[in-house]
Amino acid sequence: MAQKYTTRKEDYSKWYNETIARADLAENSGVRGCMVIKPYGYAIWEKIQAQLDIMFKETGHQNAYFPLFVPKSLFEAEEKNAEGFAKECAVVTHHRLMTDPNDSTKLVVDPKAKLEEELVVRPTSEAIIWNTYKGWIQSYRDLPILINQWANVVRWEMRTRLFLRTAEFLWQEGHTAHATKQEAIEETEQMLKVYAEFAESYMAMPVIQGVKTESERFAGADDTYCIEAMMQDGKALQAGTSHFLGQNFAKAFDVKFTDKDGTQDYVWATSWGVSTRLMGALIMTHSDDEGLVLPPALAPIQVVAVPIYKTEEDLVAISERIKELGVKLKARGISFKYDDDDNRRPGWKFSEYESKGVPVRLAMGMRDFENGNIEVARRDEKTKEIVQFDGVDVHIEKLLKEIQDNLLNKAMKHRSDNMREIDSYDEFKVKIESEGGFFLAHWDGTAETEEKIKEETKATIRCIPFDQPKENGKCMVTGKPSSGRVIFAKAY
Amino acid sequence: MAQKYTTRKEDYSKWYNETIARADLAENSGVRGCMVIKPYGYAIWEKIQAQLDIMFKETGHQNAYFPLFVPKSLFEAEEKNAEGFAKECAVVTHHRLMTDPNDSTKLVVDPKAKLEEELVVRPTSEAIIWNTYKGWIQSYRDLPILINQWANVVRWEMRTRLFLRTAEFLWQEGHTAHATKQEAIEETEQMLKVYAEFAESYMAMPVIQGVKTESERFAGADDTYCIEAMMQDGKALQAGTSHFLGQNFAKAFDVKFTDKDGTQDYVWATSWGVSTRLMGALIMTHSDDEGLVLPPALAPIQVVAVPIYKTEEDLVAISERIKELGVKLKARGISFKYDDDDNRRPGWKFSEYESKGVPVRLAMGMRDFENGNIEVARRDEKTKEIVQFDGVDVHIEKLLKEIQDNLLNKAMKHRSDNMREIDSYDEFKVKIESEGGFFLAHWDGTAETEEKIKEETKATIRCIPFDQPKENGKCMVTGKPSSGRVIFAKAY
Repeated sequence: MAQKYTTRKEDYSKWYNETIARADLAENSGVRGCMVIKPYGYAIWEKIQAQLDIMFKETGHQNAYFPLFVPKSLFEAEEKNAEGFAKECAVVTHHRLMTDPNDSTKLVVDPKAKLEEELVVRPTSEAIIWNTYKGWIQSYRDLPILINQWANVVRWEMRTRLFLRTAEFLWQEGHTAHATKQEAIEETEQMLKVYAEFAESYMAMPVIQGVKTESERFAGADDTYCIEAMMQDGKALQAGTSHFLGQNFAKAFDVKFTDKDGTQDYVWATSWGVSTRLMGALIMTHSDDEGLVLPPALAPIQVVAVPIYKTEEDLVAISERIKELGVKLKARGISFKYDDDDNRRPGWKFSEYESKGVPVRLAMGMRDFENGNIEVARRDEKTKEIVQFDGVDVHIEKLLKEIQDNLLNKAMKHRSDNMREIDSYDEFKVKIESEGGFFLAHWDGTAETEEKIKEETKATIRCIPFDQPKENGKCMVTGKPSSGRVIFAKAY
Repeated sequence: MAQKYTTRKEDYSKWYNETIARADLAENSGVRGCMVIKPYGYAIWEKIQAQLDIMFKETGHQNAYFPLFVPKSLFEAEEKNAEGFAKECAVVTHHRLMTDPNDSTKLVVDPKAKLEEELVVRPTSEAIIWNTYKGWIQSYRDLPILINQWANVVRWEMRTRLFLRTAEFLWQEGHTAHATKQEAIEETEQMLKVYAEFAESYMAMPVIQGVKTESERFAGADDTYCIEAMMQDGKALQAGTSHFLGQNFAKAFDVKFTDKDGTQDYVWATSWGVSTRLMGALIMTHSDDEGLVLPPALAPIQVVAVPIYKTEEDLVAISERIKELGVKLKARGISFKYDDDDNRRPGWKFSEYESKGVPVRLAMGMRDFENGNIEVARRDEKTKEIVQFDGVDVHIEKLLKEIQDNLLNKAMKHRSDNMREIDSYDEFKVKIESEGGFFLAHWDGTAETEEKIKEETKATIRCIPFDQPKENGKCMVTGKPSSGRVIFAKAY
């Protein structure tokens, strides 16, 4: 029990890995760069999925499923997209193994089973989907197509970290087709807003909405919009992207439609996605040195109750009362667990649920029982109070809302404390190292300057924020004119 | 509109493909053997998933996620399992493509990016999961592990058919670990019952529960239990399997646990799965020559309403009344669609929703409106009635239950009409061709006889049914003694 864990201050990266292990969320697998998402971690992902799925359907989207594999000839059709993903993709070349002629207990690739055309395991599905949409779209009446897919994708990343960057990850990818440029841009914007709303209202994670510079754009997009969040160590995490794809994929796959007036044109496209990376963002936004902290809206268990007893008789009395509360909480839509496991002591359980980030922990001993009380502990502030048992269900419901709000407010405060305007590149170079955080600076709009800053400081332009006031200024590096500040930060 | 479709009698297989196309459920993709599941088909799959997921959680299981790839050395660890799947698996050998030196618009596999160890795209996940469980299990306190995974898997089938047999398919696979053989067997049985309950109560599809013969067993299992359903053409479809894996995977991956008394033993295992194949079963159990027929429990749209009007004024009046009904139906948990699309005529819509198998179709014209009536048509029996509008929500709720029951009863009748005991092999050979269906026959229990029958008639032993009375008899082929009848049929 007295195991010493790494604090955030000591080593943020190590703390991150330990927090995941302590909460039993995920682990590395026997496959290079691929993770196992364990039941408690997956339960959080299910809550994320369920809420996003509701929001996608509310905005008119339907789910569908497209193949895992992309034949090489389709993969290479959209040149920039292919170039962007060719260097890190898993390639299927054979469809059979055979017994090793030199060792009958082993298998080897059967050279006779070589595929005529190699298959790429999808790193993203634009190619396979636009090749399919080609058969679905003839007329403006077939548009828009508003489809989302929940799927696994593979990108052969060299350095991987649980949730943040893994060779295989789970995500959703929306792929829409439109008759007009304007409609596609509106869709791109709408989905970015959905992501921002989800991040703030459910993850309690404030995000900055903006557009990527050309060099940070999705391969194959005309514009990439993004939401960027600040982690506790001041680094940025790109939490979701929404791409305006122009007519690039329609041209690559020759997808045209006939408009009302009989004219033909290429179809306009968007795609947008969030992934299990959100799990990493969630962990790094709220958790503390005692382990995971979860916002109630995404906690698989919102309330846990632990009985404290000496005799079997005590346990029966306490259990009856707590179970009664459990029924009331469930009726209010609050997920509740009663942990009366006799093999573990209360102290062990307190620590366990703390590590797992359960927002509210209840405890009842015989004194509480006799006085008509119950102990209510909140995970976010690590405070406890003795509350009258009668009406505690109402109290807890309010408390969960309060915790949700408190986590968002704390994260917003942390962000505003660590976001500053800066005008001197020398100062920037010092502060990005010493203080970290987000820096609002003027930039001359060139890829050269962006690259120079990246090389010299490892900071990148996270986005050109949408709600930044127009402000004429001078690029902090070149002194050339700039019409507004962009956000620089080191990023995950 | 007057397009002629193939009837079941004319060509069952062609009818099946046309039914899928008419209902817009799925289509073949640009990737060999892989399908695209279209939004309406996927919506049915989502209903299947949602209900099964509830049933899995009610029986104590949790979801998790394991890697898509199985390194070859893990894949070959359980010998029988490896042997069973080696011949039809997709193998990843490289992790990068590069520009074709001979044609800069093309990509080729980069020979420098050859993997040290090939990765098999999971055809099933026992190997990767038991390699993971090894790290999770030390003591009896770590058991049981009750995990399910929703995932895609790939088996390189040579002849594929939409939903029934595709190279990639979606499924769930449960993988459990137990301290005792008895507990593992009980789990295997329990999950088969869950599948049977789902098939009958939700799919309205009666199934026979039984055990597979050794030659039809899952590769790596000690016993495979199955549910077998009869399609309308008399052929059998294996709709779900639940495997008692004994200690085979525990031994292959060296997974031992220490029991209460300090002794060490290998862990006992089960695995169980159903897949998008259930979609094929659903289609072939109920649909008719007019298209898909869906049981209300799995219909994405349970009730559709179509207005019949001449003037805009009529439409407004009818719409108001129907929308009022929609609210009432939704309050009863009934999914409802109001199709007031002005671009399509009522006749087109009637035909469309018939093809899509919507269980109840409503229509209201001005005469109905004035008389306080509404037309209610049921898809299963293709009957219509004029019903008083007041209270029609209650009527529809009852009707949906009636349709659900009716579909099950019809399917049960069809099965009992086409299942017969048979004692003469000569008669069997004639009738399996001329009449089809399920044949209950005595068999001597040998793989040789089973193989002979398969070769001569294409019929296989679908299962040794659990609820068959003990009955001494003689094998219809060899005359050797048998203690009970088994089920022979041609199968999908």
